[in-house]
Amino acid sequence: MSGLDRREEFQGRRPGDRHVRIVRPPEFRHTAAGLVATERALERRGGIGRAWSTIHRVLIGRRLATAEEEQERVSRKIGLAIFASDNISSSAYATEETMRVLALAGAGALALTMPLTIAICVVLAIVVLSYLQVIRAYPQGGGSYVVAKENLGVIPGLVAASALLVDYFLTVAVSVAAGVAAVTSAFPDLHPARVAISIALVAFLTIGNLRGIREAGLIFAAPTYLYVLSVLGLLGVGLLRVTSGAVPVAAAPLAAFANEGTQALTLLLVLRAFASGSVALTGTEAVSNGVQAFKDPPDRNASIVLVAMGSLFATLFVVISYLATTIGITPDASETETVLSLLARSLVGTSPYFYLVQATTAIILILAANTAFNGFPRLASIMATDRFMPRQFAQRGDRLAFSTGIVALAVVSSLLIVAYDASVTGLIPLYTVGVFIAFTLSQTGMVRRWLRLRSRGWLVSAAINALGAFATGVVAIVVGIGKFELGAWMVVAIIPVLVAMLYGINRHYRVIGDKLLIATSVPVRLRAATPRVIVPISRIDRPSLNALSIAKGLGGDIYAVHISFDADGANAFKRRWVAVVGDAIPLDTIISPYRALLPPLLRYIDAVDRGDPERPIIVVLAEFVPRHWWEALLHNQTALLLKLRLFTRRNTSVMDVPYHLDDADAGDDRRR
Amino acid sequence: MSGLDRREEFQGRRPGDRHVRIVRPPEFRHTAAGLVATERALERRGGIGRAWSTIHRVLIGRRLATAEEEQERVSRKIGLAIFASDNISSSAYATEETMRVLALAGAGALALTMPLTIAICVVLAIVVLSYLQVIRAYPQGGGSYVVAKENLGVIPGLVAASALLVDYFLTVAVSVAAGVAAVTSAFPDLHPARVAISIALVAFLTIGNLRGIREAGLIFAAPTYLYVLSVLGLLGVGLLRVTSGAVPVAAAPLAAFANEGTQALTLLLVLRAFASGSVALTGTEAVSNGVQAFKDPPDRNASIVLVAMGSLFATLFVVISYLATTIGITPDASETETVLSLLARSLVGTSPYFYLVQATTAIILILAANTAFNGFPRLASIMATDRFMPRQFAQRGDRLAFSTGIVALAVVSSLLIVAYDASVTGLIPLYTVGVFIAFTLSQTGMVRRWLRLRSRGWLVSAAINALGAFATGVVAIVVGIGKFELGAWMVVAIIPVLVAMLYGINRHYRVIGDKLLIATSVPVRLRAATPRVIVPISRIDRPSLNALSIAKGLGGDIYAVHISFDADGANAFKRRWVAVVGDAIPLDTIISPYRALLPPLLRYIDAVDRGDPERPIIVVLAEFVPRHWWEALLHNQTALLLKLRLFTRRNTSVMDVPYHLDDADAGDDRRR
Repeated sequence: MSGLDRREEFQGRRPGDRHVRIVRPPEFRHTAAGLVATERALERRGGIGRAWSTIHRVLIGRRLATAEEEQERVSRKIGLAIFASDNISSSAYATEETMRVLALAGAGALALTMPLTIAICVVLAIVVLSYLQVIRAYPQGGGSYVVAKENLGVIPGLVAASALLVDYFLTVAVSVAAGVAAVTSAFPDLHPARVAISIALVAFLTIGNLRGIREAGLIFAAPTYLYVLSVLGLLGVGLLRVTSGAVPVAAAPLAAFANEGTQALTLLLVLRAFASGSVALTGTEAVSNGVQAFKDPPDRNASIVLVAMGSLFATLFVVISYLATTIGITPDASETETVLSLLARSLVGTSPYFYLVQATTAIILILAANTAFNGFPRLASIMATDRFMPRQFAQRGDRLAFSTGIVALAVVSSLLIVAYDASVTGLIPLYTVGVFIAFTLSQTGMVRRWLRLRSRGWLVSAAINALGAFATGVVAIVVGIGKFELGAWMVVAIIPVLVAMLYGINRHYRVIGDKLLIATSVPVRLRAATPRVIVPISRIDRPSLNALSIAKGLGGDIYAVHISFDADGANAFKRRWVAVVGDAIPLDTIISPYRALLPPLLRYIDAVDRGDPERPIIVVLAEFVPRHWWEALLHNQTALLLKLRLFTRRNTSVMDVPYHLDDADAGDDRRR
Repeated sequence: MSGLDRREEFQGRRPGDRHVRIVRPPEFRHTAAGLVATERALERRGGIGRAWSTIHRVLIGRRLATAEEEQERVSRKIGLAIFASDNISSSAYATEETMRVLALAGAGALALTMPLTIAICVVLAIVVLSYLQVIRAYPQGGGSYVVAKENLGVIPGLVAASALLVDYFLTVAVSVAAGVAAVTSAFPDLHPARVAISIALVAFLTIGNLRGIREAGLIFAAPTYLYVLSVLGLLGVGLLRVTSGAVPVAAAPLAAFANEGTQALTLLLVLRAFASGSVALTGTEAVSNGVQAFKDPPDRNASIVLVAMGSLFATLFVVISYLATTIGITPDASETETVLSLLARSLVGTSPYFYLVQATTAIILILAANTAFNGFPRLASIMATDRFMPRQFAQRGDRLAFSTGIVALAVVSSLLIVAYDASVTGLIPLYTVGVFIAFTLSQTGMVRRWLRLRSRGWLVSAAINALGAFATGVVAIVVGIGKFELGAWMVVAIIPVLVAMLYGINRHYRVIGDKLLIATSVPVRLRAATPRVIVPISRIDRPSLNALSIAKGLGGDIYAVHISFDADGANAFKRRWVAVVGDAIPLDTIISPYRALLPPLLRYIDAVDRGDPERPIIVVLAEFVPRHWWEALLHNQTALLLKLRLFTRRNTSVMDVPYHLDDADAGDDRRR
């Protein structure tokens, strides 16, 4: 370090003050509107940066430009697989849920399965019809939130939105947990790892969806269609045998319900059976939220997908219920085997086809979560555009997917899975209340809309929606009451909290919007005031001198200040200051007998401020940049704390002047 | 916001550029050496700040000025309580640990208890003698680390230090867990809360020690003396009865060891019994580390305390062993009742005095941890001064205690307690290996010292220390081998890691010291270069205009830059820029078709840099300061990420220009 003995210069290596605007860099393309950043501009540098880029490319795929959005839209075939998996997967358990409640009133009550199935399908038809109207009215994407907000007001809109948000979280948690439960009952050794497997599946769904809606569709389409085909095949066999008179013998469940029943067949019980079966209606919302995801014409394609989904589901549901009651299958009281499994066993025995049906069922149950991965981010992006959610939710990620929403959904549903130890029994009572609250609000909203618009045929439409509002409202109340104690109370309790939060977010954005925004096209005059520049100096070293030199370049008055713990230290520092820096820059010394650094410095800044409160203050901090991140732990974190404290100080800007070890090396080289 | 329609001025409210140096603020006192910050300068402002100050004052006490250090030093009486509690508490179990190993070779082998007790006391005497020499030689405070480093070299010094550091962590964990175990065996209901209780005790010790050494001494002195007095009383009764011929009947343990023994009385077994009893030597280190904590003359007072501690411990240990073997007490194979408890029960029955002895024993076991709370921070501060530990460890806190070391010890030992579920059985095998490695190294170091100095009487001194090195070395090996599989391997494995870490810390400080320091009194020339000022503008609002005005005040060339996602956005922005800001400040627009913000901005900064690489770059960031911390989550974290990325960029300073909502209000007020 002999170079130090010579008179040394800091910064300002050449005084050339000529103003050279930028030379167009190779990573940019020049256009009339400005420089266009090519993909090369996005390349990370350095070893870690490049490694991260590679991992990112492998997992998520190459970046997509905004202009490629058109190509990312999906066809009806893929759209059906993406948006319908939740709804169609319900066919695996809707019949069973209805029968399970009826069986409490004895075997005879099971005769009500078919009528209830048809009643639920009627409600489904009403909901589908209603959403067809919604798609036509709100082709930008909507669903319950938009309909309720537009026609009933902000608060009903936020209630519908909160209910749906909660339900999307639960859809992921419940369907993944249910799918994993199906796997672990086949392979009990995996049972202790159920939480880890569930979270791995959530991660898999997350990555699939971060790859963009089209790729996610391609990944997840095959299992959906496989399930539909395998079950349709099974039902075909069943219908053939029943109509040909060769009715098969019903496979016996492990444990039967009491033949005479344990409860009376009251209206309430029938309503509860209806509510249980109505779980089939979950997932119908997703298509109307995702209209914009479809190829042109998006509204027409979305409508077709919605009708296809409803028809497909209704077919599966009705035929399963029909065959189950005709053959005489009774649900398993021990919950070991599902009704669908009993039906399959009655029809094809424990043949390979039986196992195919079982396997595709397990997969579609897990994939039901994928609908939430499409529904939630889209709903969140619509709400973020309305400034009811943080604006990050409205931004498209590298693959044009709403990445923030996808990741948020994955995180919250994983937390739910961990909190409930991946237990379906624990999670299911929270589920479906939300969706029916949202349905009721949106149907009511549609009624209001018809009453307002009175367009052609409004009376019929209003009647349909009123009926829908009534039916879904009844289900919401029945489900809410029936499951209240088991956990539905949490959903009921959290909705007002969420509404308040969403409203608070909106209020914040509105307030700062009003305060910060400048009315369009009014010219302002920017006036430059000479700043006062405060430079805290802890010791006289290269980083400090570098900071002083930068501070000098700012052209304001410089206040160098040093804090000592005692008078001797202060005097020694002053002598060294005069020897090294000279007296061109005056130095203030503060003695801090209590060894505190921040408070005296803050009071000193106050004192400088009081001298002329109209001029801006700039605090220049010399910071040493270590070669490795862990080395930062070896240096005092005072600068960081000071920055935190100054951030809330008015009229005060903080400037970080980093000093790199390599700068010292380079300085030595230059002098040689 | 009608005010906005008028021509608006940003910043530089009055152009007065007169240089007013600071007016001396009321919180400072003026002296020749500089401004002295009074206690008023340290007062926190605002509701939360004042509340925190109050909590701090109640828990930790008022701040102490550096000049008050003299008054914080402790007398011999308090010093004994502080530094000896670990060592003296060993008397509660040293006899038992020895007997427990001997009992494996049958009841007859217990006759070796007394000879082994005396052998251990001889080693203790040697250790004490050695440390007396250390105190004389290193009155600045030392112990094994300093002795080994000075006389054997840096690496042996670091090995000794690492071994001691590990042992201090374990002392806290083991003694608190043991004390809590004593409490929970009396009150089994508390057993499930043992980890919480242990951590609460660690917190209590932490706060006590943060209050400064003198107050900690006052808090913890009474229990130490109470234990010594109650046990001395017990032993007095015992000696009286034994010498008067009325030997009491030994209380029977719950479970006896096999009378013929299960192992042969080999040399190894005797050595293991010796090693087990040697746990009594832990804690002797602390006094020599803490010489500077004593009142003048510190070295003399420390020496007296060290001798008093050794004598007191030896008395208790020898008499307990004597009475236990004379009366014929055998250890409890079920580990339910301690030998000390059996002895007390034999002598005074289950009288109130018996319970007094039990209670004071439990308290002293917990207080043993307090010695580590004094030893660790002092050792760490000595090492930090030598630049082998982060420098924070050498700084004294508000009460002149080494706060960083105290808190670090509390955190690590709490983690150990949690990791081992507060189990004494799990923790004990890790304990004591370290202390004997350190002892051996320090004794060897003293031998080397005598051989080098050859001062008067060096031969006798060298012989004593050589004997000590041999004895403690044997113990270290026996303990290490005996407990290797149970966990001592972890200590053996972690010592090299710690040594490498401490060495790495030192190397880092040396490297940056060389690179950053400026040779004394060589004048340097600070040259100011006009900076190039880059101002990223996300939208034209008040924070941005405020930042632009500050940037103008810096006197350099301004590069305003905006990133759009498409050409339409860029063109619209440019039109608005010209309308509002005018064309005095040129604007560059970048179009980012992949919606990335940071990479194009970084490439743009590169391009500006390439235009004239010799001039410093300042990136000015407009930041909006929300009213509440949670509101920050609603704003993009892009600025934070940009700062992180720019921190490692050469020649680039970042300036934060915060904008407060209140500034907007104030602006409105001024216009009215």
